Amino acid sequence: MISFRCDYEEGACPEVMNRLVETNLVRTPGYGEDAYCRRAAERIRRAAQCPQAEVFFTLGGTQTNLMVIAHLLRPYEAVIAAQTGHINTHETGAIESTGHKVVVCPGQEGKLTPEAVREAFAAHEDHHMVKPAMLYLSQPTELGTLYTRAELTALRQVCDELGLYLYADGARLSSALAARGNDVGLCDLATLCDAFYIGGTKCGALFGEALVFPRPQLAEGFAFTRKQRGGLLAKGRLLGVQFDALMEEGVYLKYGARQNALADRLREGVKQAGYRLLTETVTNQLFPVFPDPLIRALEREFSFHIWQRVRPGESAIRLVTSFSTEEEEVSAFLRALS
Amino acid sequence: MISFRCDYEEGACPEVMNRLVETNLVRTPGYGEDAYCRRAAERIRRAAQCPQAEVFFTLGGTQTNLMVIAHLLRPYEAVIAAQTGHINTHETGAIESTGHKVVVCPGQEGKLTPEAVREAFAAHEDHHMVKPAMLYLSQPTELGTLYTRAELTALRQVCDELGLYLYADGARLSSALAARGNDVGLCDLATLCDAFYIGGTKCGALFGEALVFPRPQLAEGFAFTRKQRGGLLAKGRLLGVQFDALMEEGVYLKYGARQNALADRLREGVKQAGYRLLTETVTNQLFPVFPDPLIRALEREFSFHIWQRVRPGESAIRLVTSFSTEEEEVSAFLRALS
Amino acid sequence: MISFRCDYEEGACPEVMNRLVETNLVRTPGYGEDAYCRRAAERIRRAAQCPQAEVFFTLGGTQTNLMVIAHLLRPYEAVIAAQTGHINTHETGAIESTGHKVVVCPGQEGKLTPEAVREAFAAHEDHHMVKPAMLYLSQPTELGTLYTRAELTALRQVCDELGLYLYADGARLSSALAARGNDVGLCDLATLCDAFYIGGTKCGALFGEALVFPRPQLAEGFAFTRKQRGGLLAKGRLLGVQFDALMEEGVYLKYGARQNALADRLREGVKQAGYRLLTETVTNQLFPVFPDPLIRALEREFSFHIWQRVRPGESAIRLVTSFSTEEEEVSAFLRALS
Amino acid sequence: MISFRCDYEEGACPEVMNRLVETNLVRTPGYGEDAYCRRAAERIRRAAQCPQAEVFFTLGGTQTNLMVIAHLLRPYEAVIAAQTGHINTHETGAIESTGHKVVVCPGQEGKLTPEAVREAFAAHEDHHMVKPAMLYLSQPTELGTLYTRAELTALRQVCDELGLYLYADGARLSSALAARGNDVGLCDLATLCDAFYIGGTKCGALFGEALVFPRPQLAEGFAFTRKQRGGLLAKGRLLGVQFDALMEEGVYLKYGARQNALADRLREGVKQAGYRLLTETVTNQLFPVFPDPLIRALEREFSFHIWQRVRPGESAIRLVTSFSTEEEEVSAFLRALS
Repeated sequence: MISFRCDYEEGACPEVMNRLVETNLVRTPGYGEDAYCRRAAERIRRAAQCPQAEVFFTLGGTQTNLMVIAHLLRPYEAVIAAQTGHINTHETGAIESTGHKVVVCPGQEGKLTPEAVREAFAAHEDHHMVKPAMLYLSQPTELGTLYTRAELTALRQVCDELGLYLYADGARLSSALAARGNDVGLCDLATLCDAFYIGGTKCGALFGEALVFPRPQLAEGFAFTRKQRGGLLAKGRLLGVQFDALMEEGVYLKYGARQNALADRLREGVKQAGYRLLTETVTNQLFPVFPDPLIRALEREFSFHIWQRVRPGESAIRLVTSFSTEEEEVSAFLRALS
Repeated sequence: MISFRCDYEEGACPEVMNRLVETNLVRTPGYGEDAYCRRAAERIRRAAQCPQAEVFFTLGGTQTNLMVIAHLLRPYEAVIAAQTGHINTHETGAIESTGHKVVVCPGQEGKLTPEAVREAFAAHEDHHMVKPAMLYLSQPTELGTLYTRAELTALRQVCDELGLYLYADGARLSSALAARGNDVGLCDLATLCDAFYIGGTKCGALFGEALVFPRPQLAEGFAFTRKQRGGLLAKGRLLGVQFDALMEEGVYLKYGARQNALADRLREGVKQAGYRLLTETVTNQLFPVFPDPLIRALEREFSFHIWQRVRPGESAIRLVTSFSTEEEEVSAFLRALS
Repeated sequence: MISFRCDYEEGACPEVMNRLVETNLVRTPGYGEDAYCRRAAERIRRAAQCPQAEVFFTLGGTQTNLMVIAHLLRPYEAVIAAQTGHINTHETGAIESTGHKVVVCPGQEGKLTPEAVREAFAAHEDHHMVKPAMLYLSQPTELGTLYTRAELTALRQVCDELGLYLYADGARLSSALAARGNDVGLCDLATLCDAFYIGGTKCGALFGEALVFPRPQLAEGFAFTRKQRGGLLAKGRLLGVQFDALMEEGVYLKYGARQNALADRLREGVKQAGYRLLTETVTNQLFPVFPDPLIRALEREFSFHIWQRVRPGESAIRLVTSFSTEEEEVSAFLRALS
Repeated sequence: MISFRCDYEEGACPEVMNRLVETNLVRTPGYGEDAYCRRAAERIRRAAQCPQAEVFFTLGGTQTNLMVIAHLLRPYEAVIAAQTGHINTHETGAIESTGHKVVVCPGQEGKLTPEAVREAFAAHEDHHMVKPAMLYLSQPTELGTLYTRAELTALRQVCDELGLYLYADGARLSSALAARGNDVGLCDLATLCDAFYIGGTKCGALFGEALVFPRPQLAEGFAFTRKQRGGLLAKGRLLGVQFDALMEEGVYLKYGARQNALADRLREGVKQAGYRLLTETVTNQLFPVFPDPLIRALEREFSFHIWQRVRPGESAIRLVTSFSTEEEEVSAFLRALS
């Protein structure tokens, strides 16, 4: 059974795994106060051209999101997210669990627009309602779409105007950075966001994310937040070792590009076979729309999510490529299509 | 520099690391719904002779503690712990962060007594005070001491009498299980506790703990709790793979025994050199009391914690052995003592 | 300036105020453990024909809502509410502040429908999402509309089917009970709901609400919840005294009927003057739609909320009658209209 | 049965009750945005000689404490309190319920000392422990003792040195202000504290407290906090009316002085009868130590708390005077003693 189900079905990419093996018996101080973590953080600061940034390694996306939001907001403040935002749909109320409301905006193919944000903000008039104080977005979005630099800049302007923090969830950031036509680099995120994280888990690591606060004053006390929320690893160096490997010359982008290229082949093949995509994506997720009998036939050989019913007799499925997806697996799928 | 600073200064024991490497590119479903996790859970159920137990893999001790307590208690209920209990001292208020008070009891060498628990409970008279509803203890304790089966049984009786859950933190459980004179096995924990966790992080794993609910009804909904608190790993199989390796015939106990044996050599050497121990421990932590000049001299070659001042001119230090501590490192320390 | 702004602009109705004065210097035990509270609770149990009900007096609506929801739900459970539900819009995230997500349904004129509830529930598939466990509704709704007994019964059936608690917010319950065509009595609420509250603040009291748990086992521990959340009044008897007065033969309904009758006169007058209402209401709130110049003219003599813009040049305003609204005030408004 | 059980067994003092009656049917805006509240706040600012202070009216002590602490602290910060502090013992974990740990200090007759505070602070070394960020004290304390101006000034200096907020709970402040030898006025509290509240409930009001932030920037957003925590009264003017009456020339102090004078008579009478007091108090609480048979005899005619067993056969009881205690009630008690 060939799987396009998700990008966290295997372990780590070779660079990461080898580094973990090589360093396994080296003794270092615990809790991330080691040289690997320092070096990985330094690589990230350099890549983002943001020498003053504070970098914290964390264990997973939901945890990172809840920690950032609980850290930056006051108890009565809320975070604005797209209807499809991960914090709104698939984190079991982790944000609310820290006491904060998620204010939902309609998105356009998963993306927030300045108009929708302004409208959501304006609906909160006084102290009988929560006070929106942060914008949460994902790059790429949960639907595989991308913000352009112009779009992010416009959202930043709205944030400045309304007094909102801007926080970007980069669970699949390698795929975004390497996407065709992408013009948002790490240094743009560092310039435009108050916090963002560089995904490890879905981008070649065993686990772990690198959270970046470009303005260090916002990170004050975050070491307490991370420990309190159960996000501090005793053998913290594991995260340093992994990000040290990923952030070496080109590794992170290499896997993003590889995933995208395979997804591109799938996209083209799907179209050539006469089918359409639910949304136009350029990253490692695609959402072809197939007749139900075809889906049932494909399920015999391939594993994937059925995303949503589009109309009677027709559904969108989700295909995801990972660092370990093989050319031949893509070819097999396209053969099965035709 | 030889380190006896803690038992989380290196990666994983060879059995665990090899297994991670071997399985690295195998694709499995995410979120711990894979065969490795199932097999590891089954091994734990068998070792604990508790076929109906529910097992959840989690990422670290603080996180596990906060999840169990938040899961089992109602909002106004509190957990009783020894003054030295980890949840009281070194978790940055993680328990309070979930809304629950930690009611503190004096301990005896880190251990709770039935009398102290009864007294703490009796001090809570009505709904103007929190309602104690759980007993938290660590096996071994934070001071390296052990509960006997008789002691645990007596605490269980107090719990039954007062309507308390009994929860055991097993961060260093391999060392407890393998200790000289220990008579508390996994199956005793399964019989006596409502929940306990088998430490991975400090017992040979890269990271991870195995949380056991011997009575499955108490685990109902815990999958939600784990996700909500950021404790669900996307590549959850990493925890299954590690515990599958640790729980194979004898591995977990082997490393516990090794750590203890090296700690025993240190204990004997310290005494033979004419020094005393702050408390009598049988696990992988010991607390020798040394004159301050000796401590300063030792610090030039060895790394360790200074635990507490005992009297003017004299302090207790903490020495910890890990799965990777070498005989020769112990010998070097003892040579330096004499 | 005549005010139709809200129903909490004055003190208490005469029956309540007199009783507070008469009993002022009587000494009673604190914290609601007094004979007035017992008698008021007994009156409520009799009125609701529910002798086993547990009754708790509380200080206000938002507080009551947050306490009930925090008391009944487990940490990862969520409450379903209409988009216009008070807990969703005007409680500054009080529910989220206790850790629970409010899952929003579209409503029909402020009311939930079984279909919408089923759909919202079905969208929550597994432990990556919150688990809906309660339905919150208001009787009357925030838009002044009423559930019929048939509608409430249908929602109860959905709750039974899906495993949800049903909780009714009765902030303006006197107006609902006394409304033309209403067929939902206190005993229906006691039969159909797991919890509901009888509003005092907006129904003749200085302050205070009476929370009813028809099934006493759900109230277990609520005395702790109330104290922990700051909802226990030291001079708790004040609430007993007030509800004792309100629940005496006919008082509560009398003021509801009076408010409704005056609102009816306003409704008829508005229609006779050739204007329409935004929604058809039968309680003490109405929402006439007026041209903006008329609104500006009315504002010179009358105080009211401008509710929403309906279309360019036309807005809905909200008029509310209270226990102290005078016939002559209504007449003055209608004169000003024509 | 004559009661010295507590100071919240009756309604309000005549000045307050009359004012509530007089203003009952006056219509004002809701939520405390009325002229009574403004005037009462202005009286408090003048009495405290702190024209820039922000004043918020709240419903009760536990609620006020939890709101102030949740408002001022970041999630991982903790509040230091005496072992006997109300937030530590008798608020059902309300502070922990908002996520914050109460760090306990031994007190001296209920009072914190600079040394104990410094020690408690110093025990919190790094981000593995909570970060103490506030000092909580009560004036008078829960044991009826008083801080002097010199003692409060010394604690303020410790706070400045360690970066702590200083917050004073004034549940029985009228008794403290009017006590023999007291040298801490409202203006001292305004100078020394970051927040404090002027108790209404136990000082002549039906209910309500006046929370003062002498530095307005710390109050920023508190209107949101109050609403979110259920502390905003719809008919907020009730609090304004009451404090307007209490803060008129001399009223608040008058009742404090009256309570203290009656307590003084009790203290003297107890001593003349040959008994001792558990602690020396100057406010409206006293703790005589009596033989158990005497206590049982007194209980036939008088109502009071048995505070603690002092030694076999002897216990301390608590006597509290209230605004409505009569001279003759005191005389009756003293007659019964002799």
